[in-house]
Amino acid sequence: MTTTLIDAIGLLVTHDEERPEVEGAALLLEDGRVAWWGESAAAPAADTRIDANGGCVMPGFVDSHSHLVFAGDRADEFEARMSGRRYEAGGIRRTVRLTREATDGQLLANARRLLTEARLQGTTTMEIKSGYGLSVADEERSVRLARLLTEEVTFLGAHVVPDGIDSEDYVDLVCGEMLDACAPHAKWIDVFCETGAFTIDETRRILEAGLARGLGARVHAGQLGESDGVRLAVELGAASVDHCTFLTEADVEALAGSSTVATLLPGAEFSTRQPYPDARRLLDAGATVALATDCNPGSSYTTSMPFCIAVAVREMGMTPAEALRAATLGGAAALRRTDIGHLRVGAAAHAVLLDAPTYVHLAYRPGVPLVRRTFTA
Amino acid sequence: MTTTLIDAIGLLVTHDEERPEVEGAALLLEDGRVAWWGESAAAPAADTRIDANGGCVMPGFVDSHSHLVFAGDRADEFEARMSGRRYEAGGIRRTVRLTREATDGQLLANARRLLTEARLQGTTTMEIKSGYGLSVADEERSVRLARLLTEEVTFLGAHVVPDGIDSEDYVDLVCGEMLDACAPHAKWIDVFCETGAFTIDETRRILEAGLARGLGARVHAGQLGESDGVRLAVELGAASVDHCTFLTEADVEALAGSSTVATLLPGAEFSTRQPYPDARRLLDAGATVALATDCNPGSSYTTSMPFCIAVAVREMGMTPAEALRAATLGGAAALRRTDIGHLRVGAAAHAVLLDAPTYVHLAYRPGVPLVRRTFTA
Repeated sequence: MTTTLIDAIGLLVTHDEERPEVEGAALLLEDGRVAWWGESAAAPAADTRIDANGGCVMPGFVDSHSHLVFAGDRADEFEARMSGRRYEAGGIRRTVRLTREATDGQLLANARRLLTEARLQGTTTMEIKSGYGLSVADEERSVRLARLLTEEVTFLGAHVVPDGIDSEDYVDLVCGEMLDACAPHAKWIDVFCETGAFTIDETRRILEAGLARGLGARVHAGQLGESDGVRLAVELGAASVDHCTFLTEADVEALAGSSTVATLLPGAEFSTRQPYPDARRLLDAGATVALATDCNPGSSYTTSMPFCIAVAVREMGMTPAEALRAATLGGAAALRRTDIGHLRVGAAAHAVLLDAPTYVHLAYRPGVPLVRRTFTA
Repeated sequence: MTTTLIDAIGLLVTHDEERPEVEGAALLLEDGRVAWWGESAAAPAADTRIDANGGCVMPGFVDSHSHLVFAGDRADEFEARMSGRRYEAGGIRRTVRLTREATDGQLLANARRLLTEARLQGTTTMEIKSGYGLSVADEERSVRLARLLTEEVTFLGAHVVPDGIDSEDYVDLVCGEMLDACAPHAKWIDVFCETGAFTIDETRRILEAGLARGLGARVHAGQLGESDGVRLAVELGAASVDHCTFLTEADVEALAGSSTVATLLPGAEFSTRQPYPDARRLLDAGATVALATDCNPGSSYTTSMPFCIAVAVREMGMTPAEALRAATLGGAAALRRTDIGHLRVGAAAHAVLLDAPTYVHLAYRPGVPLVRRTFTA
């Protein structure tokens, strides 16, 4: 049993229901858990004392949507898109080719680099999806490697239909042999339900196959246009429906009346010049909102939750407090976790110390690396 | 004479006219200057060798517009604005009050903190304005302290008219006793030419007084609406006119036909939810464009040039290459400097090594701290 006291905290964000914020606070961590918090003057003794020097301490970010198992990048594609030039180098299929060609060591090293980058920016839990393998062996490898890095592994064989196979045959494969190979390593199953990817019927079939194997459901929907995928996600009890850029009134009502989280990914809109999702509308309706990076080499190559918070406040109608909540508690809800995203007594000791007196600075000081230290159990 | 060789550079951005970019390069620094660059295989021996490990090396950022001499912050005002709440705590006048109350040591420590933050994000030259003193003694102190931190000091007594003095009397003061006190410490004079600040006639009078004292002219204009300030800046041969969010066709033509740089400050639009300036229009007309942070506690509390580049690419019609150029060579032109903003032989040894193979990643990977090392002479 070792205890660490983070003391002289200017503002402590606990997300405790009775006392969500404490000024002049201290936080006691013990064996990977939050053991106590309160006014600094009342703090117990501890083996180690860390001086927060008036900085803000808050829960670590829960990034509930990322695609970290891949090789190569697509900077040239990004540059062409932003310069208004045509570009036809294969998009996602290029990443699939490079991922298949990479060794396990290369894929792990790349994912670890990005995880480290994220942790230095305050992320303490990161969901990781497969989806650049798209064959039984390559998807199995992707989820197996992801499992070395996080508990929150998502099987996304249904990312796109790869070249050389009919979509019906591919859905059969995803629901059959590929699911068999991947399910032992995964906690979640996800489908990219969008024009050009998988239809609503295919999405239902794949998710139901995953649910029958004991996986939880997640869905990519509403990124490029309105879609029945959002209501399907709610109907199937998915933990999260991700993107939610285009939503009908019925979608918003369905989300608000459910435990399915609307996960918004502003990095994707930033990097593709698409319109941003309307977080205000979802919050006002009573839906639970999460923010995540969508980190991937095509449409959102950021690992920065602070950046997502700043954009959400600028563009999506969120207050700084709502954006912080979505990036912590919201992400936890999207992963059906109650032990992270907050600093109540008993929570995982996942905390972030900022070089700033309040979390408001995450939006007020955009782009500035404000995370002084990230604590992980 | 000590020499440092940065070797194994994936992409070297020199901004040399004949060879602006070199792949597989090395860069030799000697006594604070660029002594040589070229293919890695042809690199000379050096006292110290730094392995760039395939990273991109480029000129340090020239941030030609900041307001670093101040005390306190205005996070509460930002939070209220972004939450749609009314807020009347005095805006700029609150910062003036806190700045006047602070000691020299407090003001210097705060400015140094922000300069360090900027340097860690790749900024190697930073212009610093006064403008939160607004009395003879407090403006003199501001430029005197700024001069301890940078050569590029701007006297901005004409920021707003302070409480308790008639605007005509204040302009007399700025052009008289205040200018006398500040000119010895400053290189530039600047005026906030905008409704609610200084009129076009006042702006002309103040700039002409500064020019007569040997200061160079800069102008804040076109932030909140179209203004004759842009053409006045050109007429007076100002080095830069800053903001340029609202421009008439005549303004764009005047800028394009002049050596006055249009300095764009996307951090301000980001943090105030104002529309962004149209860099594309200026570039297409042939104007020189700079990007700068406008770092200040009210409307743009960022020190991050990479963030400004990412927003300029997303929102202002710039390609990644144009944005990099504006953040380096453009800033140098806005300060009438030819020794910085590039890495030609003889340039100041101000360089940045990225944890990325190309500068495109500054926009492609928004919010991610990609600067591995900043070299300053």
